[in-house]
Amino acid sequence: MPELSEIPANDAAALCERVLRAAGAPPSHATVQTSLLIEADLRGRPSHGLQRLPTLVARIRNGVLAPGAAPRLTWRTDVMLDVDGADGFGPVAAFAAADAVAARARRKGVALAAVRNSSHVGMLAPYVESLAEGGVVGIALTTSEALVHPPGGRTALLGTNPIGVGVPSTAGAFVLDMSTAAISAGEIIAHEQRHMQLPPGRAVDAEGLSTTDPTRARAGAISPFGGPKGYGLGLAIELIVALLSRTALGRDVTGTLDVELPATKGDVFLAIDPTVLGGDGHASYLASYLEMLRLAPTAPGVERVRIPGDRMREERAVRVGSGIRYPQALWLELLALDREAGGSDDA
Amino acid sequence: MPELSEIPANDAAALCERVLRAAGAPPSHATVQTSLLIEADLRGRPSHGLQRLPTLVARIRNGVLAPGAAPRLTWRTDVMLDVDGADGFGPVAAFAAADAVAARARRKGVALAAVRNSSHVGMLAPYVESLAEGGVVGIALTTSEALVHPPGGRTALLGTNPIGVGVPSTAGAFVLDMSTAAISAGEIIAHEQRHMQLPPGRAVDAEGLSTTDPTRARAGAISPFGGPKGYGLGLAIELIVALLSRTALGRDVTGTLDVELPATKGDVFLAIDPTVLGGDGHASYLASYLEMLRLAPTAPGVERVRIPGDRMREERAVRVGSGIRYPQALWLELLALDREAGGSDDA
Repeated sequence: MPELSEIPANDAAALCERVLRAAGAPPSHATVQTSLLIEADLRGRPSHGLQRLPTLVARIRNGVLAPGAAPRLTWRTDVMLDVDGADGFGPVAAFAAADAVAARARRKGVALAAVRNSSHVGMLAPYVESLAEGGVVGIALTTSEALVHPPGGRTALLGTNPIGVGVPSTAGAFVLDMSTAAISAGEIIAHEQRHMQLPPGRAVDAEGLSTTDPTRARAGAISPFGGPKGYGLGLAIELIVALLSRTALGRDVTGTLDVELPATKGDVFLAIDPTVLGGDGHASYLASYLEMLRLAPTAPGVERVRIPGDRMREERAVRVGSGIRYPQALWLELLALDREAGGSDDA
Repeated sequence: MPELSEIPANDAAALCERVLRAAGAPPSHATVQTSLLIEADLRGRPSHGLQRLPTLVARIRNGVLAPGAAPRLTWRTDVMLDVDGADGFGPVAAFAAADAVAARARRKGVALAAVRNSSHVGMLAPYVESLAEGGVVGIALTTSEALVHPPGGRTALLGTNPIGVGVPSTAGAFVLDMSTAAISAGEIIAHEQRHMQLPPGRAVDAEGLSTTDPTRARAGAISPFGGPKGYGLGLAIELIVALLSRTALGRDVTGTLDVELPATKGDVFLAIDPTVLGGDGHASYLASYLEMLRLAPTAPGVERVRIPGDRMREERAVRVGSGIRYPQALWLELLALDREAGGSDDA
């Protein structure tokens, strides 16, 4: 197990903002990009957290990420928004898109944005949560580099293609944020570093045979979650996002993990206002259904049934109080970036 | 194994139409409802096929399905369609909704319909396939009676909540149609009748323990596919459909399996025209990506990689040629229904 440094979220965020501003980001862009990274660390998704900051900085230095770029929003119809991220920060374009379709959905009932030329958006939860807390159903889809094999195949040909869903209820937003891969690339690396076996069914080796050996898995590909159904869902997301945002498919997707290539993935944000159809009264019905699920009779040895998002919220509450636990090597790397940027070295 | 009767699809369809018309369905409604049942049998989904005809007839006789009802379509905005199925046939309301949002999407880019007071829609594939073949991305969601337990729970509290996705490509429509349950109730019954064990991970017994015994599974609940992720997706579908269509959740859903209660499930149809965003040229890119997947290098012992919908199409081609294989007991029951209806008894 790597040694961990427990860092207050505010200190981690301040470091990240300093580094991004020193790299050329206007303060508002630095704040938005930072919030997405910190939220991932707070919610227990380190693969989308500050560990991506060195990659972002390298991408800026290499000229494939324009830190000051403002997204260009063009309504093709009343309800269809075309977003050109202008090679800027993913979360800047994504929040602009999500906010715009939410506002339009409040008037029209439904609106959709497709985003291209934009960097990695990070977790999808913050976007759809923000929509759902504003009373609007939010659905977010995004593509990624090819890391997932099709069932029966042995090479990575699909992205991890996550889906985020936010649904308003009177007891707070329901928030789903899940990739269609059985495990993340980061978790496979973490298992390898800790000399731990993977759970079964998460990956295949270079021959296409299921493996629990993280080193063999790294030479192979990640499996889709849930077999052919998870594959089908991930493929549907890959096709919808590419078609609507006119972005790349499969191995043509670059620029989210590497530091040298343009970002060719896409994002789609859909907002739906349930009140347009009269669904106002249903928000409390949803809340009582979710509460009934949480109180449902459990299987032997199970403490309680959870709703998607519950664990994330619990983790966040703990981390806001006690700090984010960064592997010490990562934190030292971040401190070095901060020093290079001319910031504080005791953040 | 039950004995099977191989029946030409046209004969099965003619029988179904006669029975539905005798039960009071106008010819056009009988044709639409029949096409959905026959398509399911042709595509290898008997649980959504003619085996549902006796239930439909009983529901009509019991006054909970109005065979002549015409759906009432009301546009709440330019792009949000409210559909009251008026307790009529599910496919009649569903096709009316899907066709209307497809036409509207061609003008506006995106349109959504929510359907309530409508019977079981059958397979989702025919709806989204029809949209995709017309150049429009189609997404269909529907709810069902509670048959699925949440992870860690031991009672059925969620529907099987399927999702259908159709995406146009120049090599034909991509069609995904999958439930979020790990197995169908019908397959569990079929395993029990054949004294076969279930594959692992498909169901739990009444205590919430995973079981491969179909009899114990029938006393328990079906598992979501893919663990917590499949559960999350199914729950998101349950919430979105109920909220937008103002229909029932969980155990409040009735009227798709029983013959006495009103249908309280809902459906949602979303249509998106990619050409509004300029995605025209991408349809051939999608086709070549799908072809590349089909030709992808395979794991040992695997003949080839498949795309969702491939098996359905293969099965359909075989069945159109050689007929639909009905369990003999079912076919005899259908012939009896047909005689009662005054139709031919040698169909």
